[in-house]
Amino acid sequence: MSIVTLITDFGTRDGYVGEVKGVLLSRCAGVSPVDVAHDLPAGDVAAGAWALQRIWDRFPHGTVHLVVVDPGVGGRRRAVAVRAGGRWFVGPDNGLLTRVAARAVPEEARGLDPARIGLPDVSDTFHGRDLFAPAAAHLACGGDPRALGPGLDPASLVLETLPEPRRRGREIVGRVVHVDRFGNLVTDVPSEWLPASPSVEVGGTGIARAGRAFADVAPGEAVLIRGSGGTLEVAVRDGSAAEALGAERGTAVRVRPAAEA
Amino acid sequence: MSIVTLITDFGTRDGYVGEVKGVLLSRCAGVSPVDVAHDLPAGDVAAGAWALQRIWDRFPHGTVHLVVVDPGVGGRRRAVAVRAGGRWFVGPDNGLLTRVAARAVPEEARGLDPARIGLPDVSDTFHGRDLFAPAAAHLACGGDPRALGPGLDPASLVLETLPEPRRRGREIVGRVVHVDRFGNLVTDVPSEWLPASPSVEVGGTGIARAGRAFADVAPGEAVLIRGSGGTLEVAVRDGSAAEALGAERGTAVRVRPAAEA
Amino acid sequence: MSIVTLITDFGTRDGYVGEVKGVLLSRCAGVSPVDVAHDLPAGDVAAGAWALQRIWDRFPHGTVHLVVVDPGVGGRRRAVAVRAGGRWFVGPDNGLLTRVAARAVPEEARGLDPARIGLPDVSDTFHGRDLFAPAAAHLACGGDPRALGPGLDPASLVLETLPEPRRRGREIVGRVVHVDRFGNLVTDVPSEWLPASPSVEVGGTGIARAGRAFADVAPGEAVLIRGSGGTLEVAVRDGSAAEALGAERGTAVRVRPAAEA
Repeated sequence: MSIVTLITDFGTRDGYVGEVKGVLLSRCAGVSPVDVAHDLPAGDVAAGAWALQRIWDRFPHGTVHLVVVDPGVGGRRRAVAVRAGGRWFVGPDNGLLTRVAARAVPEEARGLDPARIGLPDVSDTFHGRDLFAPAAAHLACGGDPRALGPGLDPASLVLETLPEPRRRGREIVGRVVHVDRFGNLVTDVPSEWLPASPSVEVGGTGIARAGRAFADVAPGEAVLIRGSGGTLEVAVRDGSAAEALGAERGTAVRVRPAAEA
Repeated sequence: MSIVTLITDFGTRDGYVGEVKGVLLSRCAGVSPVDVAHDLPAGDVAAGAWALQRIWDRFPHGTVHLVVVDPGVGGRRRAVAVRAGGRWFVGPDNGLLTRVAARAVPEEARGLDPARIGLPDVSDTFHGRDLFAPAAAHLACGGDPRALGPGLDPASLVLETLPEPRRRGREIVGRVVHVDRFGNLVTDVPSEWLPASPSVEVGGTGIARAGRAFADVAPGEAVLIRGSGGTLEVAVRDGSAAEALGAERGTAVRVRPAAEA
Repeated sequence: MSIVTLITDFGTRDGYVGEVKGVLLSRCAGVSPVDVAHDLPAGDVAAGAWALQRIWDRFPHGTVHLVVVDPGVGGRRRAVAVRAGGRWFVGPDNGLLTRVAARAVPEEARGLDPARIGLPDVSDTFHGRDLFAPAAAHLACGGDPRALGPGLDPASLVLETLPEPRRRGREIVGRVVHVDRFGNLVTDVPSEWLPASPSVEVGGTGIARAGRAFADVAPGEAVLIRGSGGTLEVAVRDGSAAEALGAERGTAVRVRPAAEA
């Protein structure tokens, strides 16, 4: 049984997810499609990169991650299969691998060549079904990656330059990199940077206390915590920090020792 | 491993999808339930028919498609299992098969008889769990279709009469048959009807350019493309064509050679 | 193949569900994760308890139900694995088992001890991934429950006291315990209490007719039916009873023989 995970912005009110799964199961009978997330904001590549970063190395070696947030489908962006950290990643070459590549150097990359894979009818609008799913099925069934298309220089993959959190004296300046379903603000500040008794500004206006868990503050109160992804997060207990603090992806977050606040 | 796909309007915030899967797995240990779409608009049979059309023949022969959009549950509509194109379809006989039947003639149809299937307690409100899931599990496990209930004349199945796109001189008049998650307008006009240099009207007001892919136009601009389902679609790059053009299911779409526009 | 069902409030726009599945599949290769519901309202333990009640005994004996609605994560609530009715339940000890326990007495309960399970890095904010998933994988793979942590007195589990429907003379007073995706109002009044010719009040204002199925009334009309969960429900055909009647969880529902209305 081989695993193909699915991260898309297809939603679950049309048949698109089913078309992809049908192709996977028709081309590789032993595959197990595993839904990860289909309700990413439409066309939001950064959200796809973030979801992928969360999950990729939680799955067994050999897992194929099919990641399709593809606003440039039919345009000039490349279609690729990439091996990194013992897993395969199949999707458009549009930055989705940015956060994975920051942690595991891509070791092999293949362009997807419809002719070589034996796909006569690839649409210009749905490569998830017509190109990526067949490629993922091929890999999931143990097929030779070289049969997918030409080798690419892994260094040529499209990766976004992520702004990095900075230290300015004893102040740390980072930013919100993801707002999750709960309205939690995930920052790019490593949790180990957290000073002992911090003072926190979100977007220059709100201020959150630091705690260990959501339960450390009263309902409705904001708290800065060491998030489950290795970076600091700002949450509002039983509420949405994004709403309460008027924050969104990109909002600056400043942390400094409270004495200097 | 046999596949049962699930298309419903149950949503994913109650336990309903789980109840159906539990019945499937309890009655046929080897079944693989495959989620296709659970967020169809409540009671929207046309949306169910559309999703089913997208996926049914992407799955391997022998797949059982469980399709439950069932506003008439407990009323007089029949419960059926239908074989067409090498797959089985289980659900209410309310038009869900309309688009499949347009492409694959139903070869066998069975009414679902709770007594014959050995189901003493069928609710009047949840046939998805109490009748369709047991029938689907029976078929997925290789059971004899005749054990489900009486044979029905396949010609008696409820199928909607779909309005067909027309040619009026050199003008093509079709309509929007589905608005997808992205706000794309899927029409019923076959892609091969597209004239070389078309002019397009959506609902009589908006006008879209023709292109090959979303990426052929600027963000926010509308484009007419050959959709991945074989018919023309109107999309707005990085936006919603439905919103931008004020269109919905049923909106007329006119295509003519630009010279005559 | 062993089954682990998933009920969470994680949504499907982040990677959280995927992280949990990755841990399950990495720790127990033969497990089949089965999605039940991920769109529960954030932090709504009562909604989790309701969804769990719907599904738990529809799945085969030996199924592990992973249920994570966990607003108190990182606080003092216990993490538990509980055996009841031939299934295992893994999650926070915060009332999620209330409705299961009303029908199947918990036979065995274990606190989850990260050290004993061999989990050095349990976050304070994501026990679904770091503690519950490993415990569920352990059980799904046939591991000894005693390896999870100390035995707990099943009588010590946190269970909510559910208000019970009452009979006042010939009047029945119950309440809405769940509003589902369709806007149906699920009450706690056993269906067998329904008088022959009932009169119904929802929230003291609206009035619904009794029927057998949604199809027994005209579109837009309210109807009281014997729900598929064993209790009375109020529905509006092709509409939302919650909206039409201004009702929500907790709203009182009164049923009496029509003659006395």
